[in-house]
Amino acid sequence: MADTTITPEADVVTLINIFTCAEERQDELVSMLDRATAEVFSGLPGFVSANIHASLDKTRVVNYAQWASMKDFDTMQLREDVRDHMAQIMAIATSADPRLFQVKAAHHA
Amino acid sequence: MADTTITPEADVVTLINIFTCAEERQDELVSMLDRATAEVFSGLPGFVSANIHASLDKTRVVNYAQWASMKDFDTMQLREDVRDHMAQIMAIATSADPRLFQVKAAHHA
Repeated sequence: MADTTITPEADVVTLINIFTCAEERQDELVSMLDRATAEVFSGLPGFVSANIHASLDKTRVVNYAQWASMKDFDTMQLREDVRDHMAQIMAIATSADPRLFQVKAAHHA
Repeated sequence: MADTTITPEADVVTLINIFTCAEERQDELVSMLDRATAEVFSGLPGFVSANIHASLDKTRVVNYAQWASMKDFDTMQLREDVRDHMAQIMAIATSADPRLFQVKAAHHA
């Protein structure tokens, strides 16, 4: 399996979705996102990658996901199975802040 | 210049810093972060990479940065030049939410 690459040149839109959660539910939220990605998102048209991050302070989970186009992303969000999975995820998370981004600049050591 | 790679196996800590900003100041915030990274952060011990993202709705800027260790990250934050640059950045941003993360799961198409 290839690793995810971040580069300003990539022809993708990047979803960064920041979930807040109770400390004791962070593991459960990570597992649920992992399962939803494997079962639903990863097979959809335009899906490129998703990386699920857990904050060391246990109060945030971030999904950093790449989609081929904004159209693919919008189409995905209208699906009933996607809405069902997001409802399950939002029963664990206390809030979500999903936004689409463009990579503007990259620096390396 | 190599691209940034996201993988659960990487021996890094990931800083995800979410800045909020006025729509009309997003470009300025991206430029300021880009310059601060080039001038200060990228030369510091333990710096691995930083990728600056602008939200399509213009209200967020996200810095996705990798550091070799939490110790390097903590040491960096104590530097006077880092504090000066962060003060300049916070004069443009309306808020910042910096947290350290671990990559827990990765999926690819």
